[in-house]
Amino acid sequence: MFIQNAWYIAAWAHEVKDRPLARTICNAHVVLFRDKATGKVGALEDRCCHRGTPLRFGEVVEEGLQCGYHGMVFDCSGTCVHIPGQASIPPQARVKHYALVEKDEFLWIWMGPAEEADTSKILDYPWHNDYRRWPHKHEVYHVKADYMLMVDNLMDLTHLGYVHKSTIGGNPKVHVDAQMTVTPKPTGLHFIRWMLDSVPPPSYVKAAGFKGRVDRWQEFEYVAPGCIIQWSGALDVGRGAQENREQDGGFQLRLFHGLTPETDNTCHYYWSTANGYRQDDPEATEQLFQEISRAFQEDKGIVEGQAAMLAATGDKRLVDIVSDKARVHMRRTVHRMLVAESTPKAAPEQVAVPAK
Amino acid sequence: MFIQNAWYIAAWAHEVKDRPLARTICNAHVVLFRDKATGKVGALEDRCCHRGTPLRFGEVVEEGLQCGYHGMVFDCSGTCVHIPGQASIPPQARVKHYALVEKDEFLWIWMGPAEEADTSKILDYPWHNDYRRWPHKHEVYHVKADYMLMVDNLMDLTHLGYVHKSTIGGNPKVHVDAQMTVTPKPTGLHFIRWMLDSVPPPSYVKAAGFKGRVDRWQEFEYVAPGCIIQWSGALDVGRGAQENREQDGGFQLRLFHGLTPETDNTCHYYWSTANGYRQDDPEATEQLFQEISRAFQEDKGIVEGQAAMLAATGDKRLVDIVSDKARVHMRRTVHRMLVAESTPKAAPEQVAVPAK
Amino acid sequence: MFIQNAWYIAAWAHEVKDRPLARTICNAHVVLFRDKATGKVGALEDRCCHRGTPLRFGEVVEEGLQCGYHGMVFDCSGTCVHIPGQASIPPQARVKHYALVEKDEFLWIWMGPAEEADTSKILDYPWHNDYRRWPHKHEVYHVKADYMLMVDNLMDLTHLGYVHKSTIGGNPKVHVDAQMTVTPKPTGLHFIRWMLDSVPPPSYVKAAGFKGRVDRWQEFEYVAPGCIIQWSGALDVGRGAQENREQDGGFQLRLFHGLTPETDNTCHYYWSTANGYRQDDPEATEQLFQEISRAFQEDKGIVEGQAAMLAATGDKRLVDIVSDKARVHMRRTVHRMLVAESTPKAAPEQVAVPAK
Repeated sequence: MFIQNAWYIAAWAHEVKDRPLARTICNAHVVLFRDKATGKVGALEDRCCHRGTPLRFGEVVEEGLQCGYHGMVFDCSGTCVHIPGQASIPPQARVKHYALVEKDEFLWIWMGPAEEADTSKILDYPWHNDYRRWPHKHEVYHVKADYMLMVDNLMDLTHLGYVHKSTIGGNPKVHVDAQMTVTPKPTGLHFIRWMLDSVPPPSYVKAAGFKGRVDRWQEFEYVAPGCIIQWSGALDVGRGAQENREQDGGFQLRLFHGLTPETDNTCHYYWSTANGYRQDDPEATEQLFQEISRAFQEDKGIVEGQAAMLAATGDKRLVDIVSDKARVHMRRTVHRMLVAESTPKAAPEQVAVPAK
Repeated sequence: MFIQNAWYIAAWAHEVKDRPLARTICNAHVVLFRDKATGKVGALEDRCCHRGTPLRFGEVVEEGLQCGYHGMVFDCSGTCVHIPGQASIPPQARVKHYALVEKDEFLWIWMGPAEEADTSKILDYPWHNDYRRWPHKHEVYHVKADYMLMVDNLMDLTHLGYVHKSTIGGNPKVHVDAQMTVTPKPTGLHFIRWMLDSVPPPSYVKAAGFKGRVDRWQEFEYVAPGCIIQWSGALDVGRGAQENREQDGGFQLRLFHGLTPETDNTCHYYWSTANGYRQDDPEATEQLFQEISRAFQEDKGIVEGQAAMLAATGDKRLVDIVSDKARVHMRRTVHRMLVAESTPKAAPEQVAVPAK
Repeated sequence: MFIQNAWYIAAWAHEVKDRPLARTICNAHVVLFRDKATGKVGALEDRCCHRGTPLRFGEVVEEGLQCGYHGMVFDCSGTCVHIPGQASIPPQARVKHYALVEKDEFLWIWMGPAEEADTSKILDYPWHNDYRRWPHKHEVYHVKADYMLMVDNLMDLTHLGYVHKSTIGGNPKVHVDAQMTVTPKPTGLHFIRWMLDSVPPPSYVKAAGFKGRVDRWQEFEYVAPGCIIQWSGALDVGRGAQENREQDGGFQLRLFHGLTPETDNTCHYYWSTANGYRQDDPEATEQLFQEISRAFQEDKGIVEGQAAMLAATGDKRLVDIVSDKARVHMRRTVHRMLVAESTPKAAPEQVAVPAK
């Protein structure tokens, strides 16, 4: 059961050009395409209403998306606008459509009723539009795990010292002992972790040339159901990092994590890395991307193993520990949203009016 | 649920030589073999009655088919005729057998009770025995779809302009606008489509050297449950194609399509192509076969996609259109046969006799 | 349903060195590891009690096995002895453990309650400790079949002439006509087959240089639930093989077969071959191992085929034959053990005391 009335990332915008792209999202079979005339993107159920053929086999024509089997054409609203050899189009000849919005290099899809989609609720990620200050690269991974397990992963950073010990992790103790401040937010939660006066990990030294100890931070904002905005970095001790992190001469990066459910047991992991320390060096942007790729493959590996084990054994007998704080808060947020969504809203006429 | 009391193609005759061949047909596990002495073919359940071992692991011996595990031998009727080291054979030592007939290069199997198999009901395909007039080649594809979806495909030829646009299709409008005459038959249906005074597709021109417009036909006979006999061709406009298609100097081919259910969601597609235009040129026969192979792979691809989508979403909310006419008739024929088969026949003694 | 209160082979001892090894045994997910300090082996459920992550992703540390996700450490008894960043360890922080014993190059696991494991019940296989008299090699195969079907295979040797006709089988009639003596034992059964005054198979001649006919034997001891100890060989006719098989100058080998259930439909097949005829020739040990490998791959192939067919069709309508004698006895032994295990033991206070 997934939250339906929410924006999920359906694809990277550049993935949808002149050919339809099929993607399963929250167990729904969706096909994305880009209108030939306007360049606007549309999302339909990937299933022609004639014989159930996936529309992904079709092609984009002037009027919309044409089924590749017998040629019916559908516009962005799912309305059939052409049946070959047939003048009249029956009203039931239509496929389901979804609200789809292109923004900040993403295609955002609303899985609930399209008419209830509120574009003001789409998360902002302005750094994707600033290639000068935040040169970046992106990727999408297919992960064989419930998307919640991937969000879990990002809510408990003590895993860095174990899962990523050979890549970005460094000393486990540094992560375990980090000062952690969790702040609930209407749309999810925020946390920041400070590793003050600590030894920078080798990758930080390599990137920014630190000579001594640093004040290091990891700032995360979780926006339900599936997005995490991360800003990590370090400045030399004494430069007042806690007061002002927007200084030159240190190390910093931004990571975007977008988890979109595919099925109950699989998800899409959209992520980008932005280089905030050597912006004029494309090699630095590429190296950062490669290093994060290796680390995220490690996350994918262990979470897929976890998912398979939970599927085989059920999720009984699990024991929360201290480092689960943000993770547990995140889970409660999602649970609340699911409950709210499944609770029928009281209609005005159902409100009891006290007798005078 | 499949029609049981019917002849299906079990294999191409040449596929069964000196070794047993296993094939699943209508969810039944069948092994085919050829008797060493007589050359007659037999079909048994592919499961030894001793320990359930597939008989396909065995070998053909003088007395019949010998299990490859502990050596029991079964004849074409499924009777065990030898148990190593054991003089007496218990009567329950037998496996199910099926009626199997070799005819016109096919092995035809009757999936109902063998004693009810009526060989006079086997379809005739004499062109397979005439290599001089109709040189031909054949193939069998494994298709991940209910066999009905493959029959559907052949009942609505408007798909040619979309599915086969890069191979045999040509202009969609030609197929959509063809004159179509559907005629019910006791065993299925017949239809013929005329594209009079039309531009021949490139492959026709290449094959037969047409200089101008042609009268082109596609004639199909569907014989339930799974066979379709196709005769297609074209003659120059003015040669009276509608009165007499058996003329030299044009283009014509015969295609045989035999769909045999494997499981509820998979089938075997037996097909042959016969060259009726340049019979003395083996290269023409081969080219025709290659071109049709490419087209049938396209059919297989889109129908497998359709089958997967229907399996994932159910077959609700489908909308019939005008081009479905022959397809709907075919479906009704099969439905009637299934209903008839599942309706118990009234036994004479059960007929109520009115009281005098 | 598997016998739980029994010793199964979990692994070859050498498979577990400094890294954890995961193996599914009787549907349970087990991870094996070797304590860093003592070299003792331990077996835990392969599922961290924190987030369900497989412990196989972790590593062996001083205190025990450390989860590779967030660093919890468990000792051989399944007790959590360390939670990073957390001083107190809740008592429910533990994972299931199994009794595990290293003996005769095997790791033996008791799948029932660890406190009921009786190490005196572990089978002895002293020949694994005698490399001078019985040089040997071993292997483990993964087999897609219920382990019972593999035990079946070893209880009816008439299969040799059919399954192994191109390897170790020889003439089917020799195997079918062998004198067979079956003796029930408290832990299973014993049988010996004599092929007196018979032509030795080519592999025997090659190995031992026989010039004429031999007295050949196959001795099997089945120890429930999954072990079979085999001693096979031959001596020249007239040397009194039936009185004394421990003579030089003939051919003999020992095979160990250990079948351990993985799931209901898969198993692990641990086996070793010991060369008892040319002990000083490593080439002979290797050749024997290679020849037996080929034969056991043949068993694996046909039994996997049998398992797939039984899974597809159920095991109804099977017919026992004369050669099934030892097999049927073995099946009854296992059935009795399963029944005994599922029958609750009468507790003393439940015994009715007759009124005085």
